[in-house]
Amino acid sequence: MKSFHIAIVLLFTGISVSGQNQYINDSLTIRKIYDMSLLNGKSYQWLDHLSNEIGGRLSGSYNAQQAVEYTKSELEELGLDKVWLQPVMVPKWTRGEREFAYVQTGPGVTRNVNITALGGSIATPSGGTKAQVIEVQGLEQLAEYGRENIEGKIVFYNRPMRADLIHTFEAYGGCVDQRYSGAEEAAKYGAVGVIVRSMNLRLDDFPHTGSMSYGDTPVEKRIPAAAISTNDAEYLSSILKIKKDLELYFKLNCEQHEDVESYNVIGEITGSEYPEEIMVVGGHLDSWDLGDGAHDDGAGVVQSMEVLRLFKEIGYKPKRTIRVVLFMNEENGLRGGNKYADVAKSKNEDHVFALESDSGGFTPRGFSITASDAQYSKILDWKKLFEPYLIHYFGRGGGGADIGPLKGGDIVLAGLRPDSQRYFDYHHASNDTFEHVNKRELELGAATMTSLMYLVDKYGLDNISNETVEMPD
Amino acid sequence: MKSFHIAIVLLFTGISVSGQNQYINDSLTIRKIYDMSLLNGKSYQWLDHLSNEIGGRLSGSYNAQQAVEYTKSELEELGLDKVWLQPVMVPKWTRGEREFAYVQTGPGVTRNVNITALGGSIATPSGGTKAQVIEVQGLEQLAEYGRENIEGKIVFYNRPMRADLIHTFEAYGGCVDQRYSGAEEAAKYGAVGVIVRSMNLRLDDFPHTGSMSYGDTPVEKRIPAAAISTNDAEYLSSILKIKKDLELYFKLNCEQHEDVESYNVIGEITGSEYPEEIMVVGGHLDSWDLGDGAHDDGAGVVQSMEVLRLFKEIGYKPKRTIRVVLFMNEENGLRGGNKYADVAKSKNEDHVFALESDSGGFTPRGFSITASDAQYSKILDWKKLFEPYLIHYFGRGGGGADIGPLKGGDIVLAGLRPDSQRYFDYHHASNDTFEHVNKRELELGAATMTSLMYLVDKYGLDNISNETVEMPD
Repeated sequence: MKSFHIAIVLLFTGISVSGQNQYINDSLTIRKIYDMSLLNGKSYQWLDHLSNEIGGRLSGSYNAQQAVEYTKSELEELGLDKVWLQPVMVPKWTRGEREFAYVQTGPGVTRNVNITALGGSIATPSGGTKAQVIEVQGLEQLAEYGRENIEGKIVFYNRPMRADLIHTFEAYGGCVDQRYSGAEEAAKYGAVGVIVRSMNLRLDDFPHTGSMSYGDTPVEKRIPAAAISTNDAEYLSSILKIKKDLELYFKLNCEQHEDVESYNVIGEITGSEYPEEIMVVGGHLDSWDLGDGAHDDGAGVVQSMEVLRLFKEIGYKPKRTIRVVLFMNEENGLRGGNKYADVAKSKNEDHVFALESDSGGFTPRGFSITASDAQYSKILDWKKLFEPYLIHYFGRGGGGADIGPLKGGDIVLAGLRPDSQRYFDYHHASNDTFEHVNKRELELGAATMTSLMYLVDKYGLDNISNETVEMPD
Repeated sequence: MKSFHIAIVLLFTGISVSGQNQYINDSLTIRKIYDMSLLNGKSYQWLDHLSNEIGGRLSGSYNAQQAVEYTKSELEELGLDKVWLQPVMVPKWTRGEREFAYVQTGPGVTRNVNITALGGSIATPSGGTKAQVIEVQGLEQLAEYGRENIEGKIVFYNRPMRADLIHTFEAYGGCVDQRYSGAEEAAKYGAVGVIVRSMNLRLDDFPHTGSMSYGDTPVEKRIPAAAISTNDAEYLSSILKIKKDLELYFKLNCEQHEDVESYNVIGEITGSEYPEEIMVVGGHLDSWDLGDGAHDDGAGVVQSMEVLRLFKEIGYKPKRTIRVVLFMNEENGLRGGNKYADVAKSKNEDHVFALESDSGGFTPRGFSITASDAQYSKILDWKKLFEPYLIHYFGRGGGGADIGPLKGGDIVLAGLRPDSQRYFDYHHASNDTFEHVNKRELELGAATMTSLMYLVDKYGLDNISNETVEMPD
């Protein structure tokens, strides 16, 4: 019945019979992919294990190693042609005892505020740090205030994410410099610590961690840095307006250790016609330690594994080599992504396509694509095949952090774009947990990724390819 | 800067200067609408009150009356041209004491299961109903089993929603006959009660209520009907496979009362040029009693109110009359929708457009539209204006239950289509609460509705209109 309906539609579109047949075949294959993912998917079960049996998977931790072993073993179960671990040295940073902070609102009167150490921060002195607070709206405001107003104080970066931006990742991009470079810059003006408003569009009580860097700040000049929940950022800002000499106390117990060995987990189905052409699909296996890393990036990990499982289940044998790569250390180093690209280069491997899922397990809306005009236009020809699944967005640019180092030559990079409105409610916070991932949304994402991988495998994206795809308008 | 960018884009599209100016003006107005909704919206605050200060608003209840008074007073605050209550008699059904059910798994051994009375059901006898259970996959299977297998038993309707359907409302449509007519049909075969699998795609412990009807079943032949949670439906089904004579006990305490007077709440901005042409935007003020009715349909109510507020805030004076209608009794009678249409007809009012929001407060994806080909094609010309807001879906058909009775003549009916994947996780269940509505998603929906209302008001949708809209391809 399904193919009958499609045929009827095509009768009136005026494309050739072979084009029609091709379109029908692709429609049916994609329908099979979605059916399998929604009716007999495994991604949610894998995510349950990663989130609830293992939990947060910070690089270098016991949990991260558990995740390496679990996913390797699950990939082996799929009967792929190869499964292996790719060693990579990763940073090891530990949070230590839970952080603590309060503001001194009056003599002997304090109010606790919710903070969390930024990843990579040094600890405060063992007695904590207590100092006056100066609020700024961003790095550039430090120069305005100058050393005379900043020295000896805690700098409070409070520029919020812009609520009017529809793509929430743009709003994140517009704020994250405060988190990443806030301590490095404030130290130059003699600040003794940094508190950063959480990268969260919602007002709530969860502080959101994330990576930060001291740049080339000498060890003895480094200052501790923490994120504060959005509710407490609002509170702190409001009380600073009436009490300029307000003092904040905070104590961080984190520690940077020597690098340790960890792994990218890799599995592959070797291509039947062009085994030397490699297509990568992946997400990152590490996560922050506060929640379970269910959205970031447990979702991307299990969706990427599911791509290969769905190919096996529907009996599709790819012409090109399909490799799932579960990258280690995206969050605080990108060592896994860099290592994978280094090894690929040293082996002279031919990577033609890479697809990353690292934007949460929400309803998929489409893809962002880094490609030449010709390649992009070929992908746009497939849009119609995705419409029944409400996949409409095919934007240019980006792809993902872990596949970024593969860039160069003719490779096309793509990133799954799920609905982003809720993502920063959970991102890097203790509420990034399994129950906030919806099974159907996760499965729709996996099927959407698999469908794109199928089309790229079938038709190729070579810039000089002569294969053409005929699609109805 | 924004208009500059848009102008640059248009320079190369080859449409006329006046078309370009029109497009730029519309783009800027729509941008203002979204900015106002996201940066200075009121919908979320209104929903907080409806959900947390008032709560579930079943027709004829004290809460429903509170909601009438609250929304009327809030509409009055907006400085509209008119605000009034439209009286309507509504059914009054009360749940009574909480329902209770167990299965008898062995002598003296029972296990409780989560049920909830269907709206409109009669109570069980005061001692409850206990009987053997027969599982069926739908109404049509009753005839297969026949009276000899059904008489004296409880019929358990267990056909699940289809997970492979991308539009979850289609999956709902494919199951809801079990809930609506299950008791009426089972009574014909001598069943003593009905248990229906909850209309929920997720496996969880929440039973989902909803409307049911006894049709013309005489009062003495009516049997009680309840929904069971999906987890317990799975459990019941699995245990029935090993224990055919399993007995289930359930007790419902609900009661149908005499109809009572309630109200549609209506506010309007009178049109400046064509005041006799009326455009309606609305949602339903009543809800089920289990949760707060935050998604169903608190979201639609506050989004509809927000449409008029946003027009006022951005200083847009509609040419046509814009009316917000908060319908009473959508859930178990549609009396408000019918009354509104009846009064409109009796007054010979000219309704040209109606937009309903009754599919939850999730990220908006587009609209479903009931219109002539010419009208639909005119709406499609506006698609490009919505793309920056990730609004891509403009499907045909539908609109909404409450505006349905307005159908006829040249009126165009439209329904907001939010992302539907999570909707049935909450629909008619006790977890349909405020915290499951995301502020941004709600606000994006309100802005999307306002933008469509703006375009329809500005350009009209008259079938014989000579106004043309020039848009870039």
